[in-house]
Amino acid sequence: MKIDLNCDMGEAFGPWRMGEDAALLDLVSSINVACGFHAGDPQVMAATMRGAVSRGVGIGAHPGFADLQGFGRRRMTLSADELGNIVAYQLGAAQAMARRAGGRVRHLKLHGALSNMAAEDVQIARACFEAALRVEPGICLFVLPQTAMEQAARELQANWVGEIFADRAYADDGSLVSRSEAGAVLDDPAEVGARIEAMLREGAIIAASGKRIPCRIDTVCLHGDGAEAVVMARALRDHLVGAGIAVSCATAG
Amino acid sequence: MKIDLNCDMGEAFGPWRMGEDAALLDLVSSINVACGFHAGDPQVMAATMRGAVSRGVGIGAHPGFADLQGFGRRRMTLSADELGNIVAYQLGAAQAMARRAGGRVRHLKLHGALSNMAAEDVQIARACFEAALRVEPGICLFVLPQTAMEQAARELQANWVGEIFADRAYADDGSLVSRSEAGAVLDDPAEVGARIEAMLREGAIIAASGKRIPCRIDTVCLHGDGAEAVVMARALRDHLVGAGIAVSCATAG
Amino acid sequence: MKIDLNCDMGEAFGPWRMGEDAALLDLVSSINVACGFHAGDPQVMAATMRGAVSRGVGIGAHPGFADLQGFGRRRMTLSADELGNIVAYQLGAAQAMARRAGGRVRHLKLHGALSNMAAEDVQIARACFEAALRVEPGICLFVLPQTAMEQAARELQANWVGEIFADRAYADDGSLVSRSEAGAVLDDPAEVGARIEAMLREGAIIAASGKRIPCRIDTVCLHGDGAEAVVMARALRDHLVGAGIAVSCATAG
Amino acid sequence: MKIDLNCDMGEAFGPWRMGEDAALLDLVSSINVACGFHAGDPQVMAATMRGAVSRGVGIGAHPGFADLQGFGRRRMTLSADELGNIVAYQLGAAQAMARRAGGRVRHLKLHGALSNMAAEDVQIARACFEAALRVEPGICLFVLPQTAMEQAARELQANWVGEIFADRAYADDGSLVSRSEAGAVLDDPAEVGARIEAMLREGAIIAASGKRIPCRIDTVCLHGDGAEAVVMARALRDHLVGAGIAVSCATAG
Repeated sequence: MKIDLNCDMGEAFGPWRMGEDAALLDLVSSINVACGFHAGDPQVMAATMRGAVSRGVGIGAHPGFADLQGFGRRRMTLSADELGNIVAYQLGAAQAMARRAGGRVRHLKLHGALSNMAAEDVQIARACFEAALRVEPGICLFVLPQTAMEQAARELQANWVGEIFADRAYADDGSLVSRSEAGAVLDDPAEVGARIEAMLREGAIIAASGKRIPCRIDTVCLHGDGAEAVVMARALRDHLVGAGIAVSCATAG
Repeated sequence: MKIDLNCDMGEAFGPWRMGEDAALLDLVSSINVACGFHAGDPQVMAATMRGAVSRGVGIGAHPGFADLQGFGRRRMTLSADELGNIVAYQLGAAQAMARRAGGRVRHLKLHGALSNMAAEDVQIARACFEAALRVEPGICLFVLPQTAMEQAARELQANWVGEIFADRAYADDGSLVSRSEAGAVLDDPAEVGARIEAMLREGAIIAASGKRIPCRIDTVCLHGDGAEAVVMARALRDHLVGAGIAVSCATAG
Repeated sequence: MKIDLNCDMGEAFGPWRMGEDAALLDLVSSINVACGFHAGDPQVMAATMRGAVSRGVGIGAHPGFADLQGFGRRRMTLSADELGNIVAYQLGAAQAMARRAGGRVRHLKLHGALSNMAAEDVQIARACFEAALRVEPGICLFVLPQTAMEQAARELQANWVGEIFADRAYADDGSLVSRSEAGAVLDDPAEVGARIEAMLREGAIIAASGKRIPCRIDTVCLHGDGAEAVVMARALRDHLVGAGIAVSCATAG
Repeated sequence: MKIDLNCDMGEAFGPWRMGEDAALLDLVSSINVACGFHAGDPQVMAATMRGAVSRGVGIGAHPGFADLQGFGRRRMTLSADELGNIVAYQLGAAQAMARRAGGRVRHLKLHGALSNMAAEDVQIARACFEAALRVEPGICLFVLPQTAMEQAARELQANWVGEIFADRAYADDGSLVSRSEAGAVLDDPAEVGARIEAMLREGAIIAASGKRIPCRIDTVCLHGDGAEAVVMARALRDHLVGAGIAVSCATAG
């Protein structure tokens, strides 16, 4: 039994730092690299790619809306064509930066508001995924299971994996409990470890109510920001390895 | 005997238009596509790539400084590492947009102040060219002959072609006469045609003084902006073809 | 009887031109100056302000969303606080550029998607207007009559004027007929002149159906883009003057 | 005897933090607020202005080049007109944000590469200062003594104060020792306190060699970034107060 651990990375910009990239790079098996639209710049991308290549971590492009100030978290209304173009552009930039570092982009994960919108609307998910596949037909799509993303990935007969969040509570419909509600974010590493192990063994998201939502789970997303992020990542990794579940890149080989 | 005609293209941005792209696309054999830093955006790039693919025109990436307001014409002081990273990023973005349109990027031409700086300083030229070659080892570099660009391209044993300007007067050292001087820009299509034909036949830049500067000439750059641009392009093309010089993409095959 | 004619202006950016600013400056009595977020830059603003000051045309700030590529026409989800801050920032920048040119900002008009949203949602209108009034208590607000903008301006006891569009058809609820419907945009200068004169004489918006919507009308917005824009502006101005209606700045004195 | 202590502030951008703003706001008497071109955004400016108003700290505008990624530290080649316009625009934006917070901008300090260039070139300093004075005739200019800035301020008969750096070593010509040289940055709070006290008592910059450069000293610049920044600021303030030198805003009253 094995699982991929992934984390957003390269979210610095110019003189501004963000996230515990160096420490997390030793704990995860895949990273999602910001591509310069919501975070990251060519310098940051280059350094992030070099770090990933030197540690053998799987590299993913992490495209978002062109909104640095809003960090790609503000919804924008774009046509399907525009969505496809911003995804293709950012993926291509990430591929070049990965090649410059001696590596290559193996997966694509949508960021922030773009991800939220693609989880809700299959046309949006298709626009983004089709563009990525056109640029790189074999790319692996990170998909939120049971959402419009999964539908789009299936319709496109794409290579895809299912992703869950390590520390977020799920509602009975498989969506995330809003951060504004109590218990939405789990901060006890022991609880997180036991919960993720249970989800992996059952092949299902376990909602806060206890309800099981069977789905494909290949990768677990860890938060990258804050000193606690490193503690949580290490605790989850140690728990899984101790439980006989190998941490292994979902896109390797 | 044959020659490539090239033109900057895709220099619109958002709601703003620039250049006679549609008309010129029928007259040139190669285009240099702005990559979003000094002009162009994913929408503009996508439309430009589609136009080039449908007409079989050679596609080049045209990276510049990240300075939309200054159109990449203002010099910026970047380290060699930064220069390489902005070139790689933009080249990758252009490659993805070309692939999305069913084509591929065959050459690289530096834009504006970045080009001027690379023509003067071999370290800058090397930083830009090395990064491009790392991303795409076979890419063809557009080089201003007898400048630091040519030296860098030779040192890197790169695939390169020499480029001259259709309508700019040259000084005796092979540099362009400054636009602030009289006669710097030629606007008589007949004169331009005869001059370019002569340069091609002699294999030399002909300076305003009449001095010959032997060099490699594979491609001629046309201006893309203004209604006169189309008249000039058509006149030059007709002159060359009439003189038995085929217009043919320098990077084809 | 008198009316103000206004027009968006200063919508160039860097090397890109837009609009027939020079010609329209002689025909309108107020201009709405883009403030650098959706269009305009410090150079463009400076030139626009100088032109307005030299002709005695009323200067307004025209703030929009920070979205150059989308020209401020894409809706963005901002908090009331964020909305107030982007309006205040842009108004302040416009005030300084006007002062540098020897003039001052007399009105505020919201641009694009920000205007559409403020017309629909009184909280958004209040957030924008309150911020502007805090920066400049006496500023005149350009308001779309019978919308949430008017409600907000009244609640804030602000100095405001009512604005109609010269060439857009109105629905029975006072909103604009969508551009996607036939007849949404009027292009016959004679028809436009007669219609605007009728609206002014009746003190009411006249919908496409013939329905009258009584409201305050102080200023008429003209389009600034395209050669036809100048023809239409001149025709409307001539019609109104010929009908004994003076064209006079709404914010003068 | 009294002195102003100033610090750059509001250098966050979007989701990215920078500097120990909250702690330093209690230790300095003036702040230089980034205006959105090299750092800061309307949200950050609003929060920074509110903090300054609530503590009675003097507010200054801190304009820089439009280069977020380079933090305004990369030189750009702008005409005098362009320089004046970017200074006026940013000053106006800062004035509006200050008014929105119930305060006002009392001084102007140039940032980063723009400051370095203005210290070397009197035309650049004049272009920036003239624009600021046109927007706000009474504004106080922060000037590096014995540089082109001082010459420009004198020629313009402006209200100005002289500024020194708390922790940077000076060369015999009054310029800063380059950071690449040993001893360029002082990190011993006791040494810094004694040195600044001596400079104030002697009315002269004391170079690393011991040379005295008599000049006007009204304000001392503290670094704002890093935990040590707060320690240094507190130590310097305590030393000066203990020596009978009051910390008092240079632009108050």
